[in-house]
Amino acid sequence: MDAPSETRQTAFTQMRERMRTLPLQNIADIAKSGFGRDDIIPLWFGEGDLTTPDFICDSAYAAMKAGHTFYTHQNGIPELRAALSDYLSRHHGAEIGTERISVTPGGMAAILAAIQMVMDAGDEVLVFDPVWPNVRGAVRMMGGDVRSVRMDATEGGFVLDLDRVEAAMTARTKAVFFASPGNPTGWIMPPEQQAALLDLCRRRGIWIIADEVYTRFHYSGPAGAAGPAAPSMLSLADAEDLVLVVNSFSKAWCMTGWRLGWLTHPASLVDTMAMVVQYNTSGVATFLQHAGATAIREGEPFVDFLVDRCRTARDIVCDSLENLPRISGLTRPQGGMYVYFRVEGVSDSRAACAEILKRTGVGLAPGFAFGDDDFLRICYCNDPKRLETAMERLRPVFM
Amino acid sequence: MDAPSETRQTAFTQMRERMRTLPLQNIADIAKSGFGRDDIIPLWFGEGDLTTPDFICDSAYAAMKAGHTFYTHQNGIPELRAALSDYLSRHHGAEIGTERISVTPGGMAAILAAIQMVMDAGDEVLVFDPVWPNVRGAVRMMGGDVRSVRMDATEGGFVLDLDRVEAAMTARTKAVFFASPGNPTGWIMPPEQQAALLDLCRRRGIWIIADEVYTRFHYSGPAGAAGPAAPSMLSLADAEDLVLVVNSFSKAWCMTGWRLGWLTHPASLVDTMAMVVQYNTSGVATFLQHAGATAIREGEPFVDFLVDRCRTARDIVCDSLENLPRISGLTRPQGGMYVYFRVEGVSDSRAACAEILKRTGVGLAPGFAFGDDDFLRICYCNDPKRLETAMERLRPVFM
Repeated sequence: MDAPSETRQTAFTQMRERMRTLPLQNIADIAKSGFGRDDIIPLWFGEGDLTTPDFICDSAYAAMKAGHTFYTHQNGIPELRAALSDYLSRHHGAEIGTERISVTPGGMAAILAAIQMVMDAGDEVLVFDPVWPNVRGAVRMMGGDVRSVRMDATEGGFVLDLDRVEAAMTARTKAVFFASPGNPTGWIMPPEQQAALLDLCRRRGIWIIADEVYTRFHYSGPAGAAGPAAPSMLSLADAEDLVLVVNSFSKAWCMTGWRLGWLTHPASLVDTMAMVVQYNTSGVATFLQHAGATAIREGEPFVDFLVDRCRTARDIVCDSLENLPRISGLTRPQGGMYVYFRVEGVSDSRAACAEILKRTGVGLAPGFAFGDDDFLRICYCNDPKRLETAMERLRPVFM
Repeated sequence: MDAPSETRQTAFTQMRERMRTLPLQNIADIAKSGFGRDDIIPLWFGEGDLTTPDFICDSAYAAMKAGHTFYTHQNGIPELRAALSDYLSRHHGAEIGTERISVTPGGMAAILAAIQMVMDAGDEVLVFDPVWPNVRGAVRMMGGDVRSVRMDATEGGFVLDLDRVEAAMTARTKAVFFASPGNPTGWIMPPEQQAALLDLCRRRGIWIIADEVYTRFHYSGPAGAAGPAAPSMLSLADAEDLVLVVNSFSKAWCMTGWRLGWLTHPASLVDTMAMVVQYNTSGVATFLQHAGATAIREGEPFVDFLVDRCRTARDIVCDSLENLPRISGLTRPQGGMYVYFRVEGVSDSRAACAEILKRTGVGLAPGFAFGDDDFLRICYCNDPKRLETAMERLRPVFM
């Protein structure tokens, strides 16, 4: 018997339906059109312009040379979990024990692990949009569905209506996911709203997955230093509340290319998390974890520098865009590393980004990626001087 | 309204049922009982005793210092994919283009990605037991079920009956998974059986997920060198056959602690794989991929050394255990880095391993982990002198 022709044509047609219909476009598409141009100012991705500090690289190399190149603990090396326990307890005013911390290969892997633990195929996760789209992909791979509660874009910034969150909850809702400070919005969920959400989710037995990767980018402190971390679910939740908090080394320590993060979870999940890590990636590179411990223990001066630089950069961008008549929805964000704003006359944000790239050499992210085809996003975690140049080029486009 | 008491007690009870009932035991449990003893000879895990070669570590550090610390291509950096394309084409006698290769954070992550692309909740994966148990965990997390086809333990080694494989296939069967050379068995699927399996799966439209992480550990070449790679599905399958081949840097380059591997897939899946990588881990650490390219390009003398050392080690173990009356099922494996054998009188392999550890200080893996509670596994990827000492201590136990 010969093979059915379709199996010999292209394997793509034989994938599961959810994977065949997976959207394949993302922010990277717009970036591709800039490849080969060396005059580009790239403000499209969610990463800064600085390489990882030397003291962190050197720590990874020292760990490698010391022979830390074998399999290790699935929840993370004790040294890193202890450093993170101290760090989280200090920043959030709550005792977070090592048994509540599992190291993951980046914040995305922490989100995936959270979803794997709480959701079966057919279940739903509520997300507060606009939000980083990757959570949708993870839910989709698990056979679940995302239900969106959109925040309201007001003159004072984005606002979440908790009544609409409750109204959107069904028997299938297993978790809510949100990021605060937000990407792309810079939105910070106020502590009283976090408390109300926690109360709501406690009543309904629904998990909270809080993405706090931008928590250090909170512009409330004195100039020259990182201020207190943004309001965190970790400050409010009890140890066994249904709360999973995602964090990462990517942003505050300039380690996007390292894939190193962690999930803070109830202690009762620690052994399950070990197996989840085992079955996803069998752990995180040992010597990278040593470098992570160094970043946590010795990295505060660098975080101070970076957050202060971001605040300066934010002000350059906002000063430049404020009062431009075609721009609306722009507020000076109190957190994160993005501005996100509506541009009058834009209705195809990808075409607008391509045109802006062509005209100015500045790479922006299209709001399309976040469900708003009339919005654009600028990542301002960049050299203030370069941002001044970028804004000089951009202002005429928005006039 | 107060929270329902169960949500305030322990979050564990609120996980999905599949995660609450996830078995939490594995080979590591037996290893824990040896912590703190410095006279242990650990032959329990699937990893060797050698740290990663310096030239690979130095390459990672050089890449870090050269600024390769940012997000990168989801399918892997072009340099590594090109190196792997050359490598696979050379070893398997088939042209494997770069568009068929995606880099993953280890072999386990490649298995997970394969399963995510082909299986919905409720679907089944057939595995040929005894096999490394982690594939079960990945299928379980995805809401699927594993159906086992056990190989027959004969005096000549393990034998797979393809008729039983076909009989076990149902409408829910989306993939077969096997490892060749096998863990724990050292079994190598003969090329003619691989061809017959491919034919069967073509007829049924079923995916083949072939784990080839031990493919270089094939003891068919001359002394002093690694021989040809073990028979591979890549030599038989057409480019768009439903074949996914898992590989890893862990074993042949002593990089278990790095979490670096790759999946070879039909070219038509390359964009989907980019998104799967994006939603699982958002990529593999950039500078580790540079080191991987170095390992592939410059690592052959090391692989020669390691495989030759393993062959010597295998012979020490087999010479020592052969003709011991309580041992059966032992054949001199032609591949892999394990011997796996039945011990008369053993019916609780974990208790046996604990007792052997206590008496001899040698750490073995219990067959329990692979579904055979009367079997034990020795990993012989270790210093031949140390293995001689280990076998001197073990022989009296098995007499």
